[in-house]
Amino acid sequence: MAEKIFSADALTDFSRHIFLKMGCPEADATLAAQVLVSADLRGIDSHGVARLSGYVRLWEADRINSKPEIKIVHESPSTAVVDGDGGLGLVVAPFAMKVAIEKAKVCGTGWVAVRHSNHFGIAGKHAMMALEHDMIGMAMTNASPLVAPVHSVERLLGTNPICVAIPAGEQPPFVADFATTTAANGKLEILQRKNMDAPEGWIQTSAGGSSTNPHELKDGGALIPLGSDKEHGSHKGYCLGSWVDIFSAVLSGANYGPWVPPFVSFLAPPADPVGKGIGHFFGAMRVDAFRPTDEFKAHMDQWIGRFRSARTIEGQGPVLIPGDPERQAEDVRLKSGIPLVEKVVEDLNQLAAKYDLTLG
Amino acid sequence: MAEKIFSADALTDFSRHIFLKMGCPEADATLAAQVLVSADLRGIDSHGVARLSGYVRLWEADRINSKPEIKIVHESPSTAVVDGDGGLGLVVAPFAMKVAIEKAKVCGTGWVAVRHSNHFGIAGKHAMMALEHDMIGMAMTNASPLVAPVHSVERLLGTNPICVAIPAGEQPPFVADFATTTAANGKLEILQRKNMDAPEGWIQTSAGGSSTNPHELKDGGALIPLGSDKEHGSHKGYCLGSWVDIFSAVLSGANYGPWVPPFVSFLAPPADPVGKGIGHFFGAMRVDAFRPTDEFKAHMDQWIGRFRSARTIEGQGPVLIPGDPERQAEDVRLKSGIPLVEKVVEDLNQLAAKYDLTLG
Repeated sequence: MAEKIFSADALTDFSRHIFLKMGCPEADATLAAQVLVSADLRGIDSHGVARLSGYVRLWEADRINSKPEIKIVHESPSTAVVDGDGGLGLVVAPFAMKVAIEKAKVCGTGWVAVRHSNHFGIAGKHAMMALEHDMIGMAMTNASPLVAPVHSVERLLGTNPICVAIPAGEQPPFVADFATTTAANGKLEILQRKNMDAPEGWIQTSAGGSSTNPHELKDGGALIPLGSDKEHGSHKGYCLGSWVDIFSAVLSGANYGPWVPPFVSFLAPPADPVGKGIGHFFGAMRVDAFRPTDEFKAHMDQWIGRFRSARTIEGQGPVLIPGDPERQAEDVRLKSGIPLVEKVVEDLNQLAAKYDLTLG
Repeated sequence: MAEKIFSADALTDFSRHIFLKMGCPEADATLAAQVLVSADLRGIDSHGVARLSGYVRLWEADRINSKPEIKIVHESPSTAVVDGDGGLGLVVAPFAMKVAIEKAKVCGTGWVAVRHSNHFGIAGKHAMMALEHDMIGMAMTNASPLVAPVHSVERLLGTNPICVAIPAGEQPPFVADFATTTAANGKLEILQRKNMDAPEGWIQTSAGGSSTNPHELKDGGALIPLGSDKEHGSHKGYCLGSWVDIFSAVLSGANYGPWVPPFVSFLAPPADPVGKGIGHFFGAMRVDAFRPTDEFKAHMDQWIGRFRSARTIEGQGPVLIPGDPERQAEDVRLKSGIPLVEKVVEDLNQLAAKYDLTLG
């Protein structure tokens, strides 16, 4: 498949100009572009500039507010609910994460549920905001219903990712960032482009049968919760996805389950919403609210070092620490640029033509 | 397999007497017995009275302190670290959860990391303490290393369970309580008793190969993180287990990873501890620190009702809500008693003889 290479700076600048064309204030456009391209840098191609035209179409359909008045609508010393006013999740999420961090500075931890938001890019970018404050960061979000609970043929949950980011000392931080399904939707998109089958256990047909067709979701199929089948613990993946949905949306007053509005403009949002927009949930915990930071970091280094040096299965690579693959991608892509597949380049070129901009 | 039926009261009373014989104060013995038998009631047989003789042997080996001075050693408005002084986890955990609840009353949420503890029974029992206060409860714990991270042949993690308990209105609460492995160790014990093979994807051999032998762990094999293999997301299960380990032990100053002391008296604890005992982590979040409790509960009822009424795969049961299976077991066992397999009855009879007590 033909690929073209772009620098992160070029993609960030291009995205920033698109967000400006949508009417975002300067600071919001810059932030949104940085958050978006952080996904491409970290190798999560499905959540980066590949989504840019999708945000534009939702804005054109009046389903994204480019000048939101984001505000705290409820709070306690360690909690808040933020209303994103229909703004870009890429902007609403950093606002909410900052609130969590400020709360943690004062009382040890901060927990913020968000309603009336939109797709926030990668969870990792937001959770990692805590690291520079010597805090543990958490981020989760609900998403368009694509996942069938155990026994269900209906799609009632999104891929609902969770990220936990934990600072270390000499070692890089621990950053676990993953969808609560067996495979993220982005992995299906890759198979579709390569014309390859999916492994069994990723998807089911509209009747709930086994399928290896990566296009199955277009025919009413569904993604399967982490675990793949009951014998291998898919009820646990269902628990995880549900937990994320409830923290993100029932706590905040957003839409949950099958009521979550789709991220694509060609599908209408449900006519009977149970809340506002989609929901997120963020947390920040000051390490020194538990034990001295130096002590904690020394033990994190020991934890990481011990896992890295584990004896491994013959023929397999070393034990990785959560965050390693994304960090490696970022190192490479900062130096050598970000490869985009032809379809995404075409998509960006169409945006460039429409808004009289130059790509790359 | 022969089974005998006992009432919950009889097992609780028997356990209480055993804990008294160990030297526990009256209140601690009562509490520990209630927590222990709650596992049998909820159908988690591996964590109930089947473990009673194990606690006794650890106490005999001077590895459990029956008269601990449990105390808060560090705190902030929304956090605390509790030192369990080597006490029974069955007693240390409720102490810590109470601290989390008191913190949440004052500042919205409370988060407590625990060190120098021991096996705490089922996570669900502790997390559910939050429900009667209209709070969301969380509980997690690390455990003896039986699980190999992805690529590793070494066992570096425990089955490290997580519980999230969320109150509802008319509906019963949402209680997700699960090990972060593909299968909990208790499931292997059942297969061992029945002389049956395990499904592929639960366990690996000491060289990291595939195995269906439920005795494989005795030969240096390991449990596999939730996901079963890389293609089906076992790196996510590894992330979950690691997260639990770090929150429970690196935040608190307990032993983590391969340093977690084993729960069996015939295996010595590591000679080079990195902390004290095992670790737990608890959370309590006041619902009304986010939105009015009635509103939240009405939406939880709607969430639960919608999931319960999902269209299902032909030939399969209804969509269950996390907590349903344990609740059903509890209903049955409160009425009809708790069935114990012969081996467990023998074990309890030996304890009865040793301590001059009567069982049942």
